[in-house]
Amino acid sequence: MRNASPEGSRRACPERSRRVYLDHAAATPVLPEVVEEMIPYLSRNFGNPSSLHDFGQAPRKAVGEARARVSRLINAEPEEIFFTSCGTEANNFALKSVAARLREQDKGKHIITSSIEHHSVVNSAKALEKSGFEVTYLPVDKSGFVDPRAVKEAIKKGTILISVMHANNEVGTVEPIREIAGVAKEAGIYFHSDAVSTAGTIPVDVKELGVDLMSLAADQFYGPKGAGALFIKKGTRIIPFLHGGIQEDGKRAGTENVPGIVGMGKAAEIVLQNMSPWNERITSLRDRLIAGLKEKVDHIYLNGHPTVRLPGNVSVCVEFVEGESMLLSLNMEGIAAASGSSCTSHALKASHVLLALGVDPALAQGSLLFSLGKGNTEEDINHVLEKFPPIVDRLRQMSPLYRKK
Amino acid sequence: MRNASPEGSRRACPERSRRVYLDHAAATPVLPEVVEEMIPYLSRNFGNPSSLHDFGQAPRKAVGEARARVSRLINAEPEEIFFTSCGTEANNFALKSVAARLREQDKGKHIITSSIEHHSVVNSAKALEKSGFEVTYLPVDKSGFVDPRAVKEAIKKGTILISVMHANNEVGTVEPIREIAGVAKEAGIYFHSDAVSTAGTIPVDVKELGVDLMSLAADQFYGPKGAGALFIKKGTRIIPFLHGGIQEDGKRAGTENVPGIVGMGKAAEIVLQNMSPWNERITSLRDRLIAGLKEKVDHIYLNGHPTVRLPGNVSVCVEFVEGESMLLSLNMEGIAAASGSSCTSHALKASHVLLALGVDPALAQGSLLFSLGKGNTEEDINHVLEKFPPIVDRLRQMSPLYRKK
Repeated sequence: MRNASPEGSRRACPERSRRVYLDHAAATPVLPEVVEEMIPYLSRNFGNPSSLHDFGQAPRKAVGEARARVSRLINAEPEEIFFTSCGTEANNFALKSVAARLREQDKGKHIITSSIEHHSVVNSAKALEKSGFEVTYLPVDKSGFVDPRAVKEAIKKGTILISVMHANNEVGTVEPIREIAGVAKEAGIYFHSDAVSTAGTIPVDVKELGVDLMSLAADQFYGPKGAGALFIKKGTRIIPFLHGGIQEDGKRAGTENVPGIVGMGKAAEIVLQNMSPWNERITSLRDRLIAGLKEKVDHIYLNGHPTVRLPGNVSVCVEFVEGESMLLSLNMEGIAAASGSSCTSHALKASHVLLALGVDPALAQGSLLFSLGKGNTEEDINHVLEKFPPIVDRLRQMSPLYRKK
Repeated sequence: MRNASPEGSRRACPERSRRVYLDHAAATPVLPEVVEEMIPYLSRNFGNPSSLHDFGQAPRKAVGEARARVSRLINAEPEEIFFTSCGTEANNFALKSVAARLREQDKGKHIITSSIEHHSVVNSAKALEKSGFEVTYLPVDKSGFVDPRAVKEAIKKGTILISVMHANNEVGTVEPIREIAGVAKEAGIYFHSDAVSTAGTIPVDVKELGVDLMSLAADQFYGPKGAGALFIKKGTRIIPFLHGGIQEDGKRAGTENVPGIVGMGKAAEIVLQNMSPWNERITSLRDRLIAGLKEKVDHIYLNGHPTVRLPGNVSVCVEFVEGESMLLSLNMEGIAAASGSSCTSHALKASHVLLALGVDPALAQGSLLFSLGKGNTEEDINHVLEKFPPIVDRLRQMSPLYRKK
């Protein structure tokens, strides 16, 4: 799928007939090959993978194949992949189940994470604080980088887990995970990384990065919703997250979402093969969009680091305008973008990520995220660069705060 | 889908060309109408329901419609339905999140459940014991009934939750939930019921039953894997199960599995409309199978209650034979059945349910579960009644324990 096709009422509305999807951080289109591979597991291969009879065989084999494919995406072993229902579950699993296990063993109650993690990490950490853990939220610099030395300094007796995301989902900054993992390893502390924004998007190698746990989500790399995974390095001490049957080696019970898992595996296989050429194109479009926005809109600021960022991430703050107003105006022009994380898009609070980067709270209200994917074209970028500047002008005309400098 | 069609290598193997699926307790075929309704949410409507732009609208609306459909299945309000990834997650959610909330409020640490619950309840309860809760596992009588008076007697100061399943997934016994819920209500204690085997199978009305929390799974009623729900009555004190974004009212964060949820909603709508005629047929086939087995096989015993049981459940113990041997021999004749719960089918331990019913451990090794569904026919039953007795004879000939009485 390149652009989602215009349909229904859109056809009667020529000025909205072009639809440009630039919200891949919220959801990626599912590849047609992925859907095709899933459908038999919604129909003739409906059996339960745990069943000993023939109906269980095809689903069981398919889950095993998907596990191998996902493991190859991040250079893990198949038995180190534990399927979950989403990236959020994988993050909850990593934090809560390691914390519970090490508490049982009286290893300590201190966790280190960053101040720009996804809400599924931040709020899991907060829940752990409520149940007696202590959490250090490390600051970041203005590009969004976590300093490995700050991680080292935060370690104390009783530190049991360090969790720092591989790349930030809002501003796109790619963190120095290898260095941070090295600090953790040296201190003998488990290291988890939320790789939901990177796995399937940029090269991820758990061995080279040196992580003990890593979270993935299929819907970030052209796979289906409802499928995620937690990489757990062999030997990592962890209690089950879902208690029940024997699925996922007893660590994540529940009948497997076979079609979702199959789709995740197929998507992993395809993105692994195509990552390099796709990213070359996406990065070039990203840089064109950034350059064009800077040229055509004044008082616009790129969030994060200019180059050490996700290939498709164009996160900006636009002064004197509200993010949501821009979003809705762009939508009227057929352009789908986001303001902050999709998980909080109805909450309308200033992004904790932007505030942690030191962005002024007023400016943070004018945040906008264009996230590009493999289906985007030069024409999409031209369309944004044509439609967006007049939107900003119009909204600023209505803004009492705006005065042309 | 009636019987799964024979395909591939099966075609070359005429004696196996008939395939009779009698393992609906492990997985039900997904209705074609359900698959059809899901597919658009795997393709053009791939957007994130939380997105404010057009791509978020169709998925958001579809999730809302599914929530309403699922609520109607159990006579709940839409805002009382919280989607999960499976029944196991719903059971973990109910037990762990209520326990955590009431512990925070110092309400107590005692939980009552039965000794025949699904592993997702039993093992969640055991995990809670490890973290300081006390759990009473109530016995059942030889039919598998939990006695409401025993529930009442087990209540003490500090009891915060009672969890008893609506019907047992292995032996099919339907519990007196209304009476047990009444006991809980009188004592001011939350009542949860695992209705994974009943919701979508027999009439379930949360208001009439008087439950505070109830678990459901789509793959038990011709919906997809990867979709379940927890009913949480308005006002019930509970902490989130997955921490993160704002989805599911903040109680179960994570991007929604939109196709799965849509499929669950469609399946709920269809089964609600057809439950009565389907069950009439299924019950009649069940009773024919039970009568036929008793007639044709000696030393065979029906587990559970003769009439107060799930419409499709035929759970038996066959003396002097191993369950798994019967299962594999039946499979050679194209018949799919189960021995114990599918969640433990590779574990090969005697079922905790049968042992709780007082079945002799040796006899419990010979357990077999035929679970019928809407696609089964008289011919299916005839096929089993033709093929099964000689299988038992043959296996008994090989058994050193067997001596004809």
